[in-house]
Amino acid sequence: MAKSKKRRAKRAGLSPGTLVHVGEQKTARVRVTLIDYDEQQYAEKEVTNVEECFPFRDRPTTTWINIDGLHQVEAIERIGRHFGLHPLVLEDIVHTEQRPKLEDFEQYLFLVTKILSYDEATAKIVAEQVSMVLGANFVMTFQEGAKDDFVPVRERIKRGTVRLRTLGADYLLYALLDSIVDNYFIILEKLGEQIETLEEALLLAPAPEQLNALHKLRREIISMRRAVWPLREVVTRLERRESKLIREGSTVFLRDVYDHIARIIDTVENYRDLVAVLLDLYLSSLSNKMNEVMKTLTIITTIFIPLSFIAGIYGMNFEYMPELKWSWSYPVVLAFMAALVGAMIFYFRKRKWF
Amino acid sequence: MAKSKKRRAKRAGLSPGTLVHVGEQKTARVRVTLIDYDEQQYAEKEVTNVEECFPFRDRPTTTWINIDGLHQVEAIERIGRHFGLHPLVLEDIVHTEQRPKLEDFEQYLFLVTKILSYDEATAKIVAEQVSMVLGANFVMTFQEGAKDDFVPVRERIKRGTVRLRTLGADYLLYALLDSIVDNYFIILEKLGEQIETLEEALLLAPAPEQLNALHKLRREIISMRRAVWPLREVVTRLERRESKLIREGSTVFLRDVYDHIARIIDTVENYRDLVAVLLDLYLSSLSNKMNEVMKTLTIITTIFIPLSFIAGIYGMNFEYMPELKWSWSYPVVLAFMAALVGAMIFYFRKRKWF
Amino acid sequence: MAKSKKRRAKRAGLSPGTLVHVGEQKTARVRVTLIDYDEQQYAEKEVTNVEECFPFRDRPTTTWINIDGLHQVEAIERIGRHFGLHPLVLEDIVHTEQRPKLEDFEQYLFLVTKILSYDEATAKIVAEQVSMVLGANFVMTFQEGAKDDFVPVRERIKRGTVRLRTLGADYLLYALLDSIVDNYFIILEKLGEQIETLEEALLLAPAPEQLNALHKLRREIISMRRAVWPLREVVTRLERRESKLIREGSTVFLRDVYDHIARIIDTVENYRDLVAVLLDLYLSSLSNKMNEVMKTLTIITTIFIPLSFIAGIYGMNFEYMPELKWSWSYPVVLAFMAALVGAMIFYFRKRKWF
Amino acid sequence: MAKSKKRRAKRAGLSPGTLVHVGEQKTARVRVTLIDYDEQQYAEKEVTNVEECFPFRDRPTTTWINIDGLHQVEAIERIGRHFGLHPLVLEDIVHTEQRPKLEDFEQYLFLVTKILSYDEATAKIVAEQVSMVLGANFVMTFQEGAKDDFVPVRERIKRGTVRLRTLGADYLLYALLDSIVDNYFIILEKLGEQIETLEEALLLAPAPEQLNALHKLRREIISMRRAVWPLREVVTRLERRESKLIREGSTVFLRDVYDHIARIIDTVENYRDLVAVLLDLYLSSLSNKMNEVMKTLTIITTIFIPLSFIAGIYGMNFEYMPELKWSWSYPVVLAFMAALVGAMIFYFRKRKWF
Amino acid sequence: MAKSKKRRAKRAGLSPGTLVHVGEQKTARVRVTLIDYDEQQYAEKEVTNVEECFPFRDRPTTTWINIDGLHQVEAIERIGRHFGLHPLVLEDIVHTEQRPKLEDFEQYLFLVTKILSYDEATAKIVAEQVSMVLGANFVMTFQEGAKDDFVPVRERIKRGTVRLRTLGADYLLYALLDSIVDNYFIILEKLGEQIETLEEALLLAPAPEQLNALHKLRREIISMRRAVWPLREVVTRLERRESKLIREGSTVFLRDVYDHIARIIDTVENYRDLVAVLLDLYLSSLSNKMNEVMKTLTIITTIFIPLSFIAGIYGMNFEYMPELKWSWSYPVVLAFMAALVGAMIFYFRKRKWF
Repeated sequence: MAKSKKRRAKRAGLSPGTLVHVGEQKTARVRVTLIDYDEQQYAEKEVTNVEECFPFRDRPTTTWINIDGLHQVEAIERIGRHFGLHPLVLEDIVHTEQRPKLEDFEQYLFLVTKILSYDEATAKIVAEQVSMVLGANFVMTFQEGAKDDFVPVRERIKRGTVRLRTLGADYLLYALLDSIVDNYFIILEKLGEQIETLEEALLLAPAPEQLNALHKLRREIISMRRAVWPLREVVTRLERRESKLIREGSTVFLRDVYDHIARIIDTVENYRDLVAVLLDLYLSSLSNKMNEVMKTLTIITTIFIPLSFIAGIYGMNFEYMPELKWSWSYPVVLAFMAALVGAMIFYFRKRKWF
Repeated sequence: MAKSKKRRAKRAGLSPGTLVHVGEQKTARVRVTLIDYDEQQYAEKEVTNVEECFPFRDRPTTTWINIDGLHQVEAIERIGRHFGLHPLVLEDIVHTEQRPKLEDFEQYLFLVTKILSYDEATAKIVAEQVSMVLGANFVMTFQEGAKDDFVPVRERIKRGTVRLRTLGADYLLYALLDSIVDNYFIILEKLGEQIETLEEALLLAPAPEQLNALHKLRREIISMRRAVWPLREVVTRLERRESKLIREGSTVFLRDVYDHIARIIDTVENYRDLVAVLLDLYLSSLSNKMNEVMKTLTIITTIFIPLSFIAGIYGMNFEYMPELKWSWSYPVVLAFMAALVGAMIFYFRKRKWF
Repeated sequence: MAKSKKRRAKRAGLSPGTLVHVGEQKTARVRVTLIDYDEQQYAEKEVTNVEECFPFRDRPTTTWINIDGLHQVEAIERIGRHFGLHPLVLEDIVHTEQRPKLEDFEQYLFLVTKILSYDEATAKIVAEQVSMVLGANFVMTFQEGAKDDFVPVRERIKRGTVRLRTLGADYLLYALLDSIVDNYFIILEKLGEQIETLEEALLLAPAPEQLNALHKLRREIISMRRAVWPLREVVTRLERRESKLIREGSTVFLRDVYDHIARIIDTVENYRDLVAVLLDLYLSSLSNKMNEVMKTLTIITTIFIPLSFIAGIYGMNFEYMPELKWSWSYPVVLAFMAALVGAMIFYFRKRKWF
Repeated sequence: MAKSKKRRAKRAGLSPGTLVHVGEQKTARVRVTLIDYDEQQYAEKEVTNVEECFPFRDRPTTTWINIDGLHQVEAIERIGRHFGLHPLVLEDIVHTEQRPKLEDFEQYLFLVTKILSYDEATAKIVAEQVSMVLGANFVMTFQEGAKDDFVPVRERIKRGTVRLRTLGADYLLYALLDSIVDNYFIILEKLGEQIETLEEALLLAPAPEQLNALHKLRREIISMRRAVWPLREVVTRLERRESKLIREGSTVFLRDVYDHIARIIDTVENYRDLVAVLLDLYLSSLSNKMNEVMKTLTIITTIFIPLSFIAGIYGMNFEYMPELKWSWSYPVVLAFMAALVGAMIFYFRKRKWF
Repeated sequence: MAKSKKRRAKRAGLSPGTLVHVGEQKTARVRVTLIDYDEQQYAEKEVTNVEECFPFRDRPTTTWINIDGLHQVEAIERIGRHFGLHPLVLEDIVHTEQRPKLEDFEQYLFLVTKILSYDEATAKIVAEQVSMVLGANFVMTFQEGAKDDFVPVRERIKRGTVRLRTLGADYLLYALLDSIVDNYFIILEKLGEQIETLEEALLLAPAPEQLNALHKLRREIISMRRAVWPLREVVTRLERRESKLIREGSTVFLRDVYDHIARIIDTVENYRDLVAVLLDLYLSSLSNKMNEVMKTLTIITTIFIPLSFIAGIYGMNFEYMPELKWSWSYPVVLAFMAALVGAMIFYFRKRKWF
């Protein structure tokens, strides 16, 4: 995290609208995929030159331009200029540390969202920025990654139910959002499993490793919240149809996405509560254990220290200690010690110490 | 919980509107019960073929179609198509992990609610989804369970007070909601009893088992909140009569349901506060006890360790220790020890240690 | 508390509007008091038959009908039917576990409020439900109790300042609310005294009994909050004159009641903060004391254990221990021990342990 | 605090509008100061008879009537009746435990504010109620105290910049509010100094006295908040010019007062956070210290108890203990003990215990 | 902080609008820089006499007047009077402890913002007030400091892209705000690095120094929040174009600034959560360590105290202790001791103590 700030800080002082890629370069070269379809036809090709996309701006068919790799900023700039995108939009696209947001530029909508994935190696949630532009009959998606997260959506269009093909660009946007949000459930599943595993371990025997695991979980849940909360507002605004680019028939679908997000937020908040409960449980168990340890210590000490003292008394080397000469002294002292132990055990039992 | 997410995650990638039952199969076969009534007549039958319900859509009488069992998705799909339900509604009906919600499709209202029951075996609150559709003169209810939770409502219609029979479908919806909400009070009663039992036990003697019980209670209250909070918004929106399907005469009844929900939420929040108070009480008692234990340990140690040291001194085997030869040494040392004990007890008393 | 839920739960399954008294029977029989007055006259009588009240509904004079005892539900039902009260209103009147609320039925307003009293025996705040109905020229009050909480109001009307007599039913309602709210200050006084007593005791010497007292106070404050918070909304809505039954001249009085409630809430919240401060103070004092105890233990142990060890060395019975034969050994060892004690005390002083 | 409630409770049962002074009598007699001014002239006199103020009600000049001492309620009542003040307003004036508030009676505005002062003796913030009435061309101020808090305002009018003299009664009200709010900064300064002193002391060496000081500070900050928060709403409403008594030219001044209050609230909240940080710091330091103490105890005990045991073994008086006779036994045992100490120190070092 | 309050308190009692510089004098003399530009030309000069700025008020070119040093209040007053600034605005400019705010005086907008810088020496965030006035075609900036924070903005104008030169005064204001906000990211970077360093140190080995570092961080984050939160509201209001001085074309830029502020707040809140997590982690680790220490102590004590007691028994000097004479006593006792140790270790292992 601190690393990303450092990069951002390097930007400070530049004129706004200057394109500087802030993020990781994940692909060797920028890959532009073009999908164009309507009721009758479906075409998909990978273009080598961004200019090939330009004619699709004004065609009545629905076009989806997907750009993977954001490090060649001039390509982004060319395509942006042709499609009339504001310089600040282009800046946000290549600067991959935006919060999820929706901006309405009348001619087009600009959305920033995050794809989450779970990195098994570091056990961390990794967020990748996906910027989307919705025009009258096109959708543009921009991301850094080489991994193609939108395969299912592409497959669905290709397989070609009529419904999806005729519903236009706003439905395509919905399908992409839906696929992103569906992915969040997989992350939730991972977190849920970890919580369950931790809870079982905690109820068995609390150990310091669990503390670190708990704190790690807390951090992951905090970062999950950051990605999901602003998305809710984005989808609410889409659903309210503030822009004329969203047609009436799409609201029912967007409401469904909203619903999923609400459920995700609900679960995340629930996880937060559960992790808090587990942390309390851990600390209380620790207190309980400490109490038990202290009691053992106290009982042992309280019983044996006075006994040792008595033994110490008769270990003294005074010449005139009449008891030392008496023949019953030893058994009497032993009996007295035994009585003392009995009395103490009785006292502890009464106080319910064990 | 994590289990349910797993199931949801399996859905990811499917086209929206594809019906996949997510939940448990609780009945062997789908059971459809049809109740049709108006002022004059009352008819109730179990239908074997969902098509038998279709004519009732357009009759002026009030019809209640109850479907138990959601695993045969084609039956749900057929009935849904005939009654003009949106594919996403059908998807939500068979996917039984929705949050309570209300959706207005103008021709009909779609509600998701949760029936809660208390499983004595696991001491957990179990939630079952009940989806409801309110049309102009029909109500459809969908649930997984074999257990018939709506018997009292059916009985009330059958017994036939005129009022209930003439009030139409929205009153029927109210009656169903009211019966669901009334059920929540039974769960509250269980929770209240547990809190009371725990409190009495805690005031008597705090024990580690109570800690686990407290944490379990906390979890149950969290899950109860999740079911009840969204329902409040659902009923508020019904009461505000945003849809023309709710007639003016029904608002007073819906306000009554709202009132019950408000009382339930109030009690749940109160329980949450009380459990927090109990947890604090438990931890404070633990601290108190620890303090008492430590004091005992310290008093015993502080009294006997110096005494043992003195005894140790005169247990040394030096040849030239003049005190050892004196005849008054032993009683003088014993007296000195007694004086020391007295001084220490005085000191501890002054410090109010016991 | 759990008890009341149990009673409520028994209701579950009944048709709405069925009258079942949920609460305690506090009087042998229902007592109906009728007060009727205008500028010229004042009449007060206890009626044996509820039907005697009926003619007063349509008279221009202001009438106050007070019903004590709610267990004879048919009497309530008869009077309710005559005055045109909704069955759900009657249900709420006899079911004495409502939250404070205001419902507007155009012809009349229905209010639920709580009279609080402090039970010295159990040191608990007891809440009793008072339901009020405000009509065009009458006020009805319903309560369980035999204790007459409204004597001052009655006295004030009887004494007969012209102002009060001419101001009508809404002013009467105000006077009743005012008298209920004034009562809350007495409860606050009790709580305030307890907090003050506890604080003084705590600053002197924290003891485990105080912990229980604190937790009890917390509970009482929680229950006080529950009674007062919803009342604020009730009075706000009255003051905003949403109903035409409240005349413009009454708003200044209602604003005064509102003001009192705001002050009570303010004080309750303040008490909550203070009790939290006291709990923190208690626990911190405990930690302080524990720390002091531990230091004592550590100092004593650290000083005497090494000394005892040295004594132990010279208590060994080896034949070849040359020191034992030397005549200066004993005083040298004693001097060494004294030096050790001095060094340790110096070390502890430097570390500011005492 | 409980004391004030007691006084309030004594009021319970009285008819609203009955004047009873609730507060402290601070002056022997009520002192009424009359200041009358316009562009040309400035007159100031102390009147002995409240009736002398009456003619000023209708003069076009700006009049400021300041009343010190509220225990002679008839004087308050006479002046109130003449100026047309509502009985409930008079009741609030003499009942000096109101929350800061603003009430609009169209002909006049009624404000309640608190002057805060810091009592060095008890180290407590003392609040005194100042009630203000703003009429078309007069301001009345009511307070208990003998101390004249408004001297600077009076001086400023007397010195007579034209601006102030022509701006009318609402500007005078602003000047009074401004002087009250300016006073709050002095209290903040006191609190800020205490926090700084405490923080320095805490970072040096935490001591139990600091705990009491911290809790006292917390209480003072809580009571400061109670006085300032409601005032913000009062000034917001003035600034929004809900009443025609506030002229447009005054809003810029009232906005300035609002700004000061916002800054005060900001600082108070900041102090609250800082005190919480200090309390955490104190408790954490205590834990740290406890840990250190426990480690010392454990290290000493763990090193010497096994050594003492070995010494104890060879202090036993069995006749057949061959080691006792060997001539190398003693140095061997001593060497073994030294080795044991070395091993333990090595172990503790490895565990980073010291 | 307390120091600044002291200074403020000195102001109390002065007439509003009196100019008194509250803050630090950082430059020897007031330095006024004048920048004037339009599409064709760019002029920059340092003026010695504030009157030189006056003609620029009414010229159509965009003028930026930057004043460094606020201690010569008459200069500020002269320029303020000429540009028609309200006396309260001037008071706020020289009183450098305002919260960030926006005030609309129709003819001009008055903004207060804070430039943050990180003082490496004290490791504290230092805030300096920058007041800005936006007129129809001029911007005035006022600050105490000698350090020129706006160099990049000046450079950008000088380098002269046409866009920036033609966009007028509101764009200039945006550019200044943007440069201030960009600076905040550098502070965030510092804080982020500190959090990361602390976290790594904590996971390695918790030490008391980290506690102080954590508390310092908490304070810095609290003070960062105070500077940033109110700025968000300022920019929101600018973006909503409440004033006609902000032209429509500027909203997209202001939205960008808003976005940056939202991201900063987001990160600050995140840091707050992370620091809380770290503090919990620290305290929990401490508890863990304490537990471990206590266990070691208890195990050692519990094993050796009974053994020492047995040795003590046979160290008693009674004449009639038959065991002392037996030849197998010594090895038997040693064996018994070894068995006891074995049993205890077995017991501790079973309880999972080590």
